[in-house]
Amino acid sequence: MIRIFDARQTVHAPARELHNGSWSDYAETPARADAIAASLGETSPARDFGIAPISAVHDGEYLGFLERAHAEWRAAGREGDAIGYAWPVVGRRPLKLDRIDAALGRFSFDAATPIAQGTWQGAYWSAQTALTALDDMLAQNSSRAFALCRPPGHHAGADYCGGYCYLNNAAIVAEEATARGDGPVAILDIDYHHGNGTQDIFYDRGDIFFASIHADPATDFPFYWGHADECGAGDGRGATLNLPLSRGCDLDGYRPALDTALKAIADWGARFLVVSFGADIHADDPISHFALQTGDFRALGARIGEVGLPSLIVMEGGYAVDALGANVKRFLDGIGG
Amino acid sequence: MIRIFDARQTVHAPARELHNGSWSDYAETPARADAIAASLGETSPARDFGIAPISAVHDGEYLGFLERAHAEWRAAGREGDAIGYAWPVVGRRPLKLDRIDAALGRFSFDAATPIAQGTWQGAYWSAQTALTALDDMLAQNSSRAFALCRPPGHHAGADYCGGYCYLNNAAIVAEEATARGDGPVAILDIDYHHGNGTQDIFYDRGDIFFASIHADPATDFPFYWGHADECGAGDGRGATLNLPLSRGCDLDGYRPALDTALKAIADWGARFLVVSFGADIHADDPISHFALQTGDFRALGARIGEVGLPSLIVMEGGYAVDALGANVKRFLDGIGG
Repeated sequence: MIRIFDARQTVHAPARELHNGSWSDYAETPARADAIAASLGETSPARDFGIAPISAVHDGEYLGFLERAHAEWRAAGREGDAIGYAWPVVGRRPLKLDRIDAALGRFSFDAATPIAQGTWQGAYWSAQTALTALDDMLAQNSSRAFALCRPPGHHAGADYCGGYCYLNNAAIVAEEATARGDGPVAILDIDYHHGNGTQDIFYDRGDIFFASIHADPATDFPFYWGHADECGAGDGRGATLNLPLSRGCDLDGYRPALDTALKAIADWGARFLVVSFGADIHADDPISHFALQTGDFRALGARIGEVGLPSLIVMEGGYAVDALGANVKRFLDGIGG
Repeated sequence: MIRIFDARQTVHAPARELHNGSWSDYAETPARADAIAASLGETSPARDFGIAPISAVHDGEYLGFLERAHAEWRAAGREGDAIGYAWPVVGRRPLKLDRIDAALGRFSFDAATPIAQGTWQGAYWSAQTALTALDDMLAQNSSRAFALCRPPGHHAGADYCGGYCYLNNAAIVAEEATARGDGPVAILDIDYHHGNGTQDIFYDRGDIFFASIHADPATDFPFYWGHADECGAGDGRGATLNLPLSRGCDLDGYRPALDTALKAIADWGARFLVVSFGADIHADDPISHFALQTGDFRALGARIGEVGLPSLIVMEGGYAVDALGANVKRFLDGIGG
């Protein structure tokens, strides 16, 4: 299997996040990527496909913000990582905003996703990692590739960061594969958390299908997206499928949702699959609440592999660092190729 | 002049706020109210007008959230004050949300307005303080009353808290005066910060006029409201007037904006005035950037008094505690009555 990992991603390393009323250590650490990389054996570095495929899914004003935010924060005399403290309430009009604090609120939805010195560079190379995996896959006519992306991407929308995510790697490669004529593309998101950014990016579009299996947003982040009645709008009506599951879900509870998602993807006529893969569905994950075991990841991978679609696996979350390498390896072994 | 102050407001005392990337001591302290009260001489306590006049401007679901949020926070095993970490991005649909963290994001717009043990009680009595001042004013056919409200209110919308504000005292009395047949009511907001909550509550209505003189939201909180082109919508078109001023503004810079606001209020045909009065326009204010001196407050009060409308002054911000009593006293001396 094609395996892409680029160490330039690890320059992104925020110190802390606001959670449950106080600071906690930033859970989305460079050590996550190192732990996965160690389990993979040989990997190839990313090549640079430039900003164009990123701009195809992200708003230009947002990208400019993301690239400059940390420098503007320091220029304003602040220490540490850039983090917002005010957000426009639901329904406010879009505005051109100059002050860094206003922009941070406008272009994010949480206080858990600071912009550190290396954030732009790390996120950029995370996106290039996904694009390199896609390019190799198509060039080699290969059926599988794994992009060890970090920071993850599925919570990032066209014009906002959040949930440890800045650039939406899965959306970027789904759009790029579509542009190259290798669609129709479906995205299957099996991270513990709903992939709100990916959903938002394609919500009004009928040419890319999005299915997500995740913890019920009534109990879990990102709260405001991922409810079962969100099914797309306009041309995209019916091209979004949300399958929220209760906390405590194990493999037996997970299988029917996976079967449902894969059947919907097949029925829709997908010819290419992007998997947003989060290993935070594992029982030991410190910020998540499903009960899948390391051995279960092979079964999940195998079930997805059965559908016979060319599949690009993009790494999303997973915070049980000690179990991470084994969980990812089992999943990739299961999906095969 | 009628002067209402109720010590039950001071049970509201959050410990800290998120600002510029780190915690800082909560600036909106009970000591503010004590400093003003000490300058006033004799005051009367609030009477209880119940929840009905509060519900007339605030959403019922929001009020339930506000009353229960701290208890739910503690029930979730958290320490300290309830504070959000995730907010729905602009344009998300309204949702019924169960988890306390989701509700905190839904019903607020910043991480600077925690809900502490005494917040509901303090905000409730702050609103009752304003209602008592109004009731006394009308019963006594008096032309002036001062409501020493704290916490302040003008950043609180129908369904959100923020900017140290929870219940919008000025909006509550403007609505109540209107309901009692003492309108048309105009609200003049001269706090350093734009009164976004008040604006939002009446934005679509033509029966209550809102004028605000404040620091340009391009540079100052609340960022997302208070721009000069915001002038009301629908039936309220033309009944909102925003007059943003640059940092460093002194009395000479302030006067023309005040003249403009008062002329607009007179032209509109107001018969009753609510003044959202923030003393944070003073040069020494630690979180604000205008340059008015203590002696200037008398001139401001006098200019507003000249319009000859029955005027209920509701206390909003002002964080230079040492200067606060003198600034408020000068203003009340100036407005007379």
